[in-house]
Amino acid sequence: MKKVEERINFRRLKNTIDKSAEIGEIPGNGLKRLALSDEDKEMRDLFKSWMEETGLSVRIDDFGNMYGRREGKRDLAPVLIGSHLDTQPRGGRFDGILGVLTALEVVRTLNDYHIETARPIEIINFTNEEGARFEPPMMASGGLAGIFEKEFVYSRVDRTGKSFEDELKRIGYDGLQENRIKDFFAFLELHIEQGPVLESENISIGGVEGIQGMNWREITVTGEADHAGPTPMHLRKDALAAASKMMSVIEETAIKYGVTATVGRLSVTPDVANCVPGEVVFSLDVRHMDNDLRMKTLEKMIDEMEKVALERNVSFEVENLWDSETTLFNEKLRNLIMETAEKYGYTSKSIPSGAGHDAKYMNELGPTAMIFLPSVNGKSHDVSELTLDEDIEKGANVLFGVIKRLANDEMKL
Amino acid sequence: MKKVEERINFRRLKNTIDKSAEIGEIPGNGLKRLALSDEDKEMRDLFKSWMEETGLSVRIDDFGNMYGRREGKRDLAPVLIGSHLDTQPRGGRFDGILGVLTALEVVRTLNDYHIETARPIEIINFTNEEGARFEPPMMASGGLAGIFEKEFVYSRVDRTGKSFEDELKRIGYDGLQENRIKDFFAFLELHIEQGPVLESENISIGGVEGIQGMNWREITVTGEADHAGPTPMHLRKDALAAASKMMSVIEETAIKYGVTATVGRLSVTPDVANCVPGEVVFSLDVRHMDNDLRMKTLEKMIDEMEKVALERNVSFEVENLWDSETTLFNEKLRNLIMETAEKYGYTSKSIPSGAGHDAKYMNELGPTAMIFLPSVNGKSHDVSELTLDEDIEKGANVLFGVIKRLANDEMKL
Repeated sequence: MKKVEERINFRRLKNTIDKSAEIGEIPGNGLKRLALSDEDKEMRDLFKSWMEETGLSVRIDDFGNMYGRREGKRDLAPVLIGSHLDTQPRGGRFDGILGVLTALEVVRTLNDYHIETARPIEIINFTNEEGARFEPPMMASGGLAGIFEKEFVYSRVDRTGKSFEDELKRIGYDGLQENRIKDFFAFLELHIEQGPVLESENISIGGVEGIQGMNWREITVTGEADHAGPTPMHLRKDALAAASKMMSVIEETAIKYGVTATVGRLSVTPDVANCVPGEVVFSLDVRHMDNDLRMKTLEKMIDEMEKVALERNVSFEVENLWDSETTLFNEKLRNLIMETAEKYGYTSKSIPSGAGHDAKYMNELGPTAMIFLPSVNGKSHDVSELTLDEDIEKGANVLFGVIKRLANDEMKL
Repeated sequence: MKKVEERINFRRLKNTIDKSAEIGEIPGNGLKRLALSDEDKEMRDLFKSWMEETGLSVRIDDFGNMYGRREGKRDLAPVLIGSHLDTQPRGGRFDGILGVLTALEVVRTLNDYHIETARPIEIINFTNEEGARFEPPMMASGGLAGIFEKEFVYSRVDRTGKSFEDELKRIGYDGLQENRIKDFFAFLELHIEQGPVLESENISIGGVEGIQGMNWREITVTGEADHAGPTPMHLRKDALAAASKMMSVIEETAIKYGVTATVGRLSVTPDVANCVPGEVVFSLDVRHMDNDLRMKTLEKMIDEMEKVALERNVSFEVENLWDSETTLFNEKLRNLIMETAEKYGYTSKSIPSGAGHDAKYMNELGPTAMIFLPSVNGKSHDVSELTLDEDIEKGANVLFGVIKRLANDEMKL
C-alpha cells in the first residue's frame, strides 16, 4: 500500500503570502519593499512574530539576517531553509518571499503532525538579496560566505546617501556577529524560476542544477560621425550599422552553440536623427552551465564581431566587465528533490538557474540546493510576476518532504 | 586668343576669413557664434563696416537679415548673393561664412576692375541659418519666403528662455520690414559641401542640383522585456535583436535602390545589461532627389521591416516625423556655374545637397543656385571642418564670374 505523504496547509500558507503582499503594496498587485526600508522593517516585525508564534527561537545577526530555530532531538548541524523578503522597486509578491514563507509553513506542518526531527531546523530571511537599494545583490549571504567584508557591506550607500549600517540600525535589525549561521547540514531555497521554461513545458517542480556562469563584456564600436544628408552610403563608417551586424552574429552564434546571449544595453553617439552614428557602446551577457563551452562561444562571438568591424572599417574594443564561474549545487540534494516530487506525483525536471540567488553564496558554506516553481510568462522583477496557487502548494509540499527527510535521515551529502 | 578671366584677390578674401575666425573662436580652430549672441553682434558690426568700406549701402530687415547694395546702371531686380555668419556651438570657420565673405569679395573685385553692372548686386547675411540656438534652422530665409510667420519667428526661445525678438533687439539688429528683399533676378549661395563627394572624386566645384527630399520616420519595436539569465533564446521576443535585423534591411534596401538612409537615433528600454530589451525606438532618415524613388524605397523598407517583425513575433509601428519634398534649383544657373568653372579651367560636377540651406527657401522666391566647395573628410558642424585655400579661391572666382555675367547679361532664367 502506497504511503500517503503528509501535506502542508495551503490555506495557511496562502494567508501568510497575502499578509506579506499588503506590506509595501503598489498598484498592479506588486510590491515595493526595498531592503532596510520602513516596509522591510514592518515585514520583518510581522515575520518575527510569526516565527515566535510557531515556537521558533529568533535571532538576528550583524548583517540583519533573521533566523528562527526549531530544536532537533540531537546536537547536529541544522537543516537551513529560506530566502529573502525584500523586493525590487516594482517587484512582485513571490520572488524570494515564497522561499521564506514556505520555510515557515514547513515548520508549521511539522508542528501540526507533531513531528520531531533529529536535526535542528533553521529558517533564514537574508537581508538585501535584491541589491535594488544597496548594491551589490545577495549582499548578506555573500557576507556570511566571506565574499564581502563586513566593512564593505556596512559602507554601502543608497542613492540618497544613506548607508547600510545606519539603515540597519535605524530599523533595529543590527544583531550580533555571533548569531551568524556557522555550520549547516544542508541549505534549501525554494524560489520562482523567473524564466519561462517550467511553464512552457508544463512542469511543476524544477530541481536546480546550479547557477549558470556568466560573462559580461562591453563592446565599443567606433566609426565616424557624419552628416546623414551629404554622406553617401559607400563613404560611411556607420558604427550603428556595424553594431547591428554584430548583434546578429551574437544571436546566431548563441543559438548555434546553445548558450544564452543578451545585448541589453546600447547607446549611440551622437544619437541624432540626421547624423551617421560615430560610436556605439553595448553590453553582452553570455550564460551557460558549461564554463568551457561558454568561454569558447564568447571567443567565437568576438572573432565574428571582429570580422564585421574589419569589413566595415570601424574599430572595435572589448572590455571585461564581469566574469562569474558556474555554481554547481549538491547533486544528492537535487535528486532528493526530484524523488520527493515523484512521491507526491508531481512533474519535475532538472534546470539551470540563469539568475543569481542567495543559494549561490550559501553553496560556498555547505551542501545547497534550490527548488524552482513556474513563473507565469516567465516574469519577475515586475508587478506582473505570478506563480499559481497549485504550483505554490506543490512546491511547499516538496520542500516539506525534503526537509523532513534531511532532518531525520542519516544520508551523507 | 583665349581671354584671361578676371580673378578675385585671394589674399584679401583670406584675410576676411581669418578676421571672422577670431570672433567666437574655440579650441581646435572652431567657432561658436550662435545666432543673436554677443559674438554674432560683433561679427555683424565688423561685416557692416566692411560693406560700408566697400561702398555698399547697408540695410537691415525685421528678421535681422543684413543687406549690402551696390547699385546697377539700370533699374532692374538685383542679383542676390550670400549665406549666413552664424555657426553651430562647435562649428567651423567656413559653413555659411564662406558664402557671405566670397560675396563681399565679388563686389570688391568688381570695384578693383571698375566694373559697373547693369543690375544692382545685393549681398545678404541671413539670420539664424543654423537653428542651433533658436529652432528651426533657416529661420530668416524661411521668414522671407513666407514659410514662417513673423510672430512665430519672434516668439522662438533659446534654452535659457530668451526670445528671438528680445535678442534681436538687444544686439541692435531689429530692422524694418520694408527692408526685406522683395524681388531678385537670381540668388546665388556658395557653401561648403558638408559631405565627402567632391573631395573623394577630386572635384573643385559642385553645381548643386537642388536639395534632396527627405522623410523622417520613427520606428517602435515592441517585444517583451525578460530576465536575460533564465529566458532561453527560443522563448524571447527581443526588441533589439529584431531592430538589428531591421537596420540591416534598411541598409541593404538603401544600397539596392541608391538612396541614403540613416538610423541615427536609437533607444532601448529598459536598457539594462541583464534584461532582454522589451522596446526599441529608432529614427529613420531617407533622402534622395527623386521623390518617387525615395518614397517607393521607403515603402519597401517598411515592408521588409514588417516581415522581420512578423518572423520574430514583435510588434512594429511607424510614425511620420517629417516629410520634405525635393527642391530643384534653377538649371540655367547651374549650367552657368559649370560653364564658368570650365572657363577658369576647374573641375566641376552636378551634385545634390543632402543638407538644407537658405537657398532652399530663397528658391521659393526666385531663380536660385548653389556652388559647393569640397569639405576635407566631409566634415562640417564640427571644429575639424576645413575647406582648402585653393578650393576657396576657385569657388570665389567662379562666383565672381557667374555674378558678373548675371548682373550684365540679358539672359532669361
